[in-house]
Amino acid sequence: MSKQERVLTGDRITGKLHLGHYVGSLKNRLLLQEQYETYILLADVQALTTHFENPKIISDNLRNVALDYLSVGLHPEKSTMFVQSMIPEIAELTVYYSMFVTVNTLRHNPTIKTEAKQRGYKDMYYGFLGYPVSQAADITFCKATLVPVGDDQIPHIEQTRKIVRRFNDLYAPVLVEPEAIVGDRLEGLDGGNKMSKSMGNAIFLDSSRDEVTAQIKRAKTDPNRIHKHDPGNPDICPIYDYHSAFRPEGCDEIRQSCRAGTIGCSDCKGLAIRAINELLEPIRERRAIYSGRPKDIDEIMIEGTRKARRVAGETMTEVREAMGINYFA
Amino acid sequence: MSKQERVLTGDRITGKLHLGHYVGSLKNRLLLQEQYETYILLADVQALTTHFENPKIISDNLRNVALDYLSVGLHPEKSTMFVQSMIPEIAELTVYYSMFVTVNTLRHNPTIKTEAKQRGYKDMYYGFLGYPVSQAADITFCKATLVPVGDDQIPHIEQTRKIVRRFNDLYAPVLVEPEAIVGDRLEGLDGGNKMSKSMGNAIFLDSSRDEVTAQIKRAKTDPNRIHKHDPGNPDICPIYDYHSAFRPEGCDEIRQSCRAGTIGCSDCKGLAIRAINELLEPIRERRAIYSGRPKDIDEIMIEGTRKARRVAGETMTEVREAMGINYFA
Ligand code: SF4
Ligand code: SF4
Repeated sequence: MSKQERVLTGDRITGKLHLGHYVGSLKNRLLLQEQYETYILLADVQALTTHFENPKIISDNLRNVALDYLSVGLHPEKSTMFVQSMIPEIAELTVYYSMFVTVNTLRHNPTIKTEAKQRGYKDMYYGFLGYPVSQAADITFCKATLVPVGDDQIPHIEQTRKIVRRFNDLYAPVLVEPEAIVGDRLEGLDGGNKMSKSMGNAIFLDSSRDEVTAQIKRAKTDPNRIHKHDPGNPDICPIYDYHSAFRPEGCDEIRQSCRAGTIGCSDCKGLAIRAINELLEPIRERRAIYSGRPKDIDEIMIEGTRKARRVAGETMTEVREAMGINYFA
Repeated sequence: MSKQERVLTGDRITGKLHLGHYVGSLKNRLLLQEQYETYILLADVQALTTHFENPKIISDNLRNVALDYLSVGLHPEKSTMFVQSMIPEIAELTVYYSMFVTVNTLRHNPTIKTEAKQRGYKDMYYGFLGYPVSQAADITFCKATLVPVGDDQIPHIEQTRKIVRRFNDLYAPVLVEPEAIVGDRLEGLDGGNKMSKSMGNAIFLDSSRDEVTAQIKRAKTDPNRIHKHDPGNPDICPIYDYHSAFRPEGCDEIRQSCRAGTIGCSDCKGLAIRAINELLEPIRERRAIYSGRPKDIDEIMIEGTRKARRVAGETMTEVREAMGINYFA
């Protein structure tokens, strides 16, 4: 990987970010922004695809997510944060790419299938079926080479790569094939489910010390462990997952003490609480600073969007030229 | 109908225009532009939907079609001629409308079904399936109230009306429901088929006197009429169709003489040739003038596109406000 790599990452704007986002992507982004030009998509259009009946959730959360980004340490000079709906070139590319992806290809996309089932869609919305196409537009408008994703998103990156190859074959080698970087996943507080806002099992990044403490205290552990000295099974306990994620150095010890019944769940949780709060402390400090400067947050998004549009405009010029539809150039 | 009506019309840019276009829409547009604000879409994106493998056909024909418009008498001060791909707001609206139209609704659209069959599509392209959605964007970006169409396009106008109602119900009454004005259709030279470039049965608007003469002379007539005095059947003869379209005043007489066997096909064709050439004469004169001024044609399209974008920008502002995604307004 050279300095010429460009990273595209982002989040659907449907709520505040939580520790699952931290482990799955934010942590990674903090490293990436130090090495590569990074673009972070505030994906409001993609959020609308599933929330068009209640778009308020998006405007309510746009600034929260930007604040989460800044609080974890994503830096506007290293990471260009921009609003998807304000880049019309993404919509234009979506329309062009739609021409050479077939309906059945999209129907057979395993993530689309799973998600449609989860959401109980019998008759999918056209835009929902096509969201891998618009994701290809998100990735290619800025010629991203690296895309950090969860493993469920791998089929979409594969779809993007196919679209890029098809475009470049049909017209001219303008677009760039991205590669996926797969992040970790974090269990929710209930155990057995990935941490997610919609599952109600999430610890948000803006949680106070007391909230973290209360949430972890309420969290499930190995349900077969009744007495303090019963041997436990860390593999089915979400608390163990938090140890792996937030204090990996102490992980082996917890594993052994849990299995041996030499540590009580309450003490074990206490260690996890401390580790999570240590992680969140500098995040809270940055949040306190930015919270008082809402105009600065807006300015960061506006400036990031401006920069992203410049890049988008350059790509569109090349795309139009390649397709031979730059009539008055 | 009041002066506040706004007309949206246009053509896929896949070739020069012919007499079928004249009868089906151009004639109508000449009347409409005298009464209403008229927008004429040079539909290059829609043409790409079915010609993405050969986009050259579009750049080759864009100026031809604009020249056809100007030659028939569409006037840039009355009819705003603009290029679809240069209005990114149309792509943006397409993306938003895609969110609340279901895949099955599009699959059951009778025109999509017929056209997919004609083109031999087994697995439709995603963009092809969705072209009624992008047509809704074409119509609504300028809040058109009247849309002159062929009868095959009626399901698409119905789809646009549904999208408008859905949007206005969900968000705010920003969009306008259009009404269809159905134009006439003209038989091709082969009889039995609508005149169309792809059927190879078309008389183009740029045909010379001699070309028209030769084409009509070669055209089919009632195949059962062998001798000059055999009674004919005008209902199965394309030449009779041209009489109806281009010299309606003489139509009844032709009908009677044909049925009585008192007119020969050659004489009958002669009358049709004369009528068509009379129609085309002023069109040829205007064409001769504009042909020598290619820069003016470009300027007309550029200026029309600029005007259309202004209108599009106003609509998008209202759309974003209605959807609550005008974050930094
Ligand atoms: S000791 Fe820790 S890892 Fe083991 S079950 Fe209790 S909370 Fe879970
Ligand atoms: S007389 Fe005219 S209308 Fe009758 S069959 Fe001949 S060409 Fe057709």
